[in-house]
Amino acid sequence: MAQVYFKTKPDGRAVFDYYYRSNPFNGGYAIFAGLEDVLDILETLEFSASDLVFLEQQGFEKEFLEYLRDFRFNGNIRSSKEGDVVFPNRPILQVEANIIEAQIIETMLLNLLNFQTLIATKANRVRRSAKEATLLDMGLRRAHATGGYYASRAAVIGGFDGTSNVKAGEDFNIPVSGTMAHSFIQSYGDELQAFRDFAKVRPKNCVLLIDTYNTLRSGLQNAIIVAKEMENAGEQLMGVRLDSGDLAYLAKQTRKILDDANLGYVKIVASNQLDEFVIKSLKDQGAPIDIFGVGTNLVTGKPDAALGGVYKLSEFNGDPRIKLSENIIKVSLPYKKQVYRMLDKQGMFYGADAVAMFTEDAVEHMEHPFDATKSMSLRGFDYEALLQDVMTSGKKVSPPRTVTEIAEYSKSRLEKLPEEYKRFQNPHIYKIGLSSQLKQERDKLVLKHKF
Amino acid sequence: MAQVYFKTKPDGRAVFDYYYRSNPFNGGYAIFAGLEDVLDILETLEFSASDLVFLEQQGFEKEFLEYLRDFRFNGNIRSSKEGDVVFPNRPILQVEANIIEAQIIETMLLNLLNFQTLIATKANRVRRSAKEATLLDMGLRRAHATGGYYASRAAVIGGFDGTSNVKAGEDFNIPVSGTMAHSFIQSYGDELQAFRDFAKVRPKNCVLLIDTYNTLRSGLQNAIIVAKEMENAGEQLMGVRLDSGDLAYLAKQTRKILDDANLGYVKIVASNQLDEFVIKSLKDQGAPIDIFGVGTNLVTGKPDAALGGVYKLSEFNGDPRIKLSENIIKVSLPYKKQVYRMLDKQGMFYGADAVAMFTEDAVEHMEHPFDATKSMSLRGFDYEALLQDVMTSGKKVSPPRTVTEIAEYSKSRLEKLPEEYKRFQNPHIYKIGLSSQLKQERDKLVLKHKF
Repeated sequence: MAQVYFKTKPDGRAVFDYYYRSNPFNGGYAIFAGLEDVLDILETLEFSASDLVFLEQQGFEKEFLEYLRDFRFNGNIRSSKEGDVVFPNRPILQVEANIIEAQIIETMLLNLLNFQTLIATKANRVRRSAKEATLLDMGLRRAHATGGYYASRAAVIGGFDGTSNVKAGEDFNIPVSGTMAHSFIQSYGDELQAFRDFAKVRPKNCVLLIDTYNTLRSGLQNAIIVAKEMENAGEQLMGVRLDSGDLAYLAKQTRKILDDANLGYVKIVASNQLDEFVIKSLKDQGAPIDIFGVGTNLVTGKPDAALGGVYKLSEFNGDPRIKLSENIIKVSLPYKKQVYRMLDKQGMFYGADAVAMFTEDAVEHMEHPFDATKSMSLRGFDYEALLQDVMTSGKKVSPPRTVTEIAEYSKSRLEKLPEEYKRFQNPHIYKIGLSSQLKQERDKLVLKHKF
Repeated sequence: MAQVYFKTKPDGRAVFDYYYRSNPFNGGYAIFAGLEDVLDILETLEFSASDLVFLEQQGFEKEFLEYLRDFRFNGNIRSSKEGDVVFPNRPILQVEANIIEAQIIETMLLNLLNFQTLIATKANRVRRSAKEATLLDMGLRRAHATGGYYASRAAVIGGFDGTSNVKAGEDFNIPVSGTMAHSFIQSYGDELQAFRDFAKVRPKNCVLLIDTYNTLRSGLQNAIIVAKEMENAGEQLMGVRLDSGDLAYLAKQTRKILDDANLGYVKIVASNQLDEFVIKSLKDQGAPIDIFGVGTNLVTGKPDAALGGVYKLSEFNGDPRIKLSENIIKVSLPYKKQVYRMLDKQGMFYGADAVAMFTEDAVEHMEHPFDATKSMSLRGFDYEALLQDVMTSGKKVSPPRTVTEIAEYSKSRLEKLPEEYKRFQNPHIYKIGLSSQLKQERDKLVLKHKF
């Protein structure tokens, strides 16, 4: 496609919208993540000499390859802030660029935003279940190869406290946290000696895995012996970890036995196929678990496994563009746009985002995208314009943000979203409306292309 | 763990088994993939200066950091061949190494083998449904960030013909195949002109996407006009692509209309949320689709999203090691081992792999791992020893294999697996047995650690 554009309309100017069509996990919202990575890549994106050799072998023409040799992304990006709460069927990000450039970046942009938004959302659901408990990402061994690197980043944006992924910790400045494996205890054969050696070498933040042979009769008893020895040495055992069996039962028993041994400060860590529903159930049962290690279900975004975000052309050389579908919800929105979020008197999200043409001054009314009987007055509401310049002519114009800053921002945004939109079962549906002008323009285009 | 080993048993020699516990996708087998990548990484694995600085900040001790500065993997690996058909609860690969080295590589090894084995297996299921049709991986936009790179590799091992992932194509020498997006047609507004330009610039392997406005009344009609114009120019339109609507109905109508226009050579390409079940249904309905583009469900390994492969210590300094569990199927197998695959008189897989201690000479009998009433004589069977040396003292000893070679090998192995094991619904269960000696040794260890 890029080569065809290069030959037929090299100066075409395009606007593309990034958005998704339904919330992941049957939930009521998503957490937008991946933006900083996309912007960083766009600032440095180029084709290497070996890339160009390969593309030449694929039959691309010399003139086009010369264009690619000097390729840089010079476009503009307006976007929701990374970490914001977002909803379906409204632009989260818009790219405005030469159409060749806008086309070449499509897959990278979709790949990073779809995945990190999925995982940040999953992480946030787990955070909601876990309430104040500490959450550790332990998923790298089951992650999708190198994609696990970005899963660890997105998990923190969604509310996790740390990761076992050391490289992600290093690069994204995320707290890292080690785990003890069963093999460590097996290598000793003698569980007590394994615990003693571990506590001696790493007394700080020491967590002992107690289910290798028998949780309550062996692992916990040996952990208590080591905890007492640590006390004599002026140290404190941080925790014991449960990784199999009935976690609710074992956590309660473990808590009681630890407390009876005057080890009330020793924390209980739990892992093993956890997700937001298992953690909610453990909480509902009163399982006294202080730290949850979440792996596979977090980093793979199970059960969804993907967010179906799309990248649709909405304007070309100033003219509106539309993609039709037999499924009306899949009809795209034309024109460069802005999205306004309505706020109530307390500054909470009112539950309505209005999508308008970028050129519109004031939006006093929003209409249901398809149901002509539904509309809503926006008069008197405070509002925020959500799409802001983050890249102009290929250069970042928003200050760089750390993962921790993005996570804090996300938390503050979620606090503004009423609880009804956040529940797992049949969450309240956040309204997305169109300005009357945008709706009219869209409907005109639909008619124009109708068969 | 590595630092504790370094301080307490720096010369410990470990054997770890890689295996998984149940077949992905409720199927009867898996395709082992990812080995060459693991071996390549192991040959060059080291800690960078910045890694060491970060680890120092994490509180690791100076002596241990000095060890890491010179770290190389010097161990031995015995493995099934990449691309082979494998089954649960038997070692697929064994690592024999200094325990610090064996520990440090664990996550990388699990990450790459779990993911690629998952995707190669998924791809093979799609290949089984698609029969002789061409299969293209189009999943990168929904893949788990950079993990999509390895998904494209594994897809070819499982039976795919090509990918839209250009970087994977370049690095793994996989055929690459472009796609036309709806935005291309939208940018023109005029669908016919878009098709004409595309065919003019890229007449070779030209596939036109015909569902942007209306598949049969607009897209197909314009494609036919362009196909005829290409004929006049001495070219041939390769295909038309359906990406929405009822693919069975549209494919049949499209075929008929193309044939009526004397365009019997124009192929039909279909995409849109395909997986092995949708493709099987399309085939069962007689949908005349020549090429399937498969995306999200392939590269995310939906619905499983992960293979739960594990890495368990089975021997330490020559002594057997075991991990117990309340769930008997999760009890690990001690000792360095070999796996023997039984063959019938025609050289087909008989449906039984026997796991034995590495030191055993002849295995004439295999027993059910848990059911004492079940056993089977192995006398008179031909067999293969599946675990072969692939790395010795940190150096690859098996000749490097291209992805294409691995894919061909995989195909040849699947041809030896009877159909009953390959069906989607309630596949026949491939037997995994233990030699009498291994079973006795395991049971002895279980009793020793019993509480």
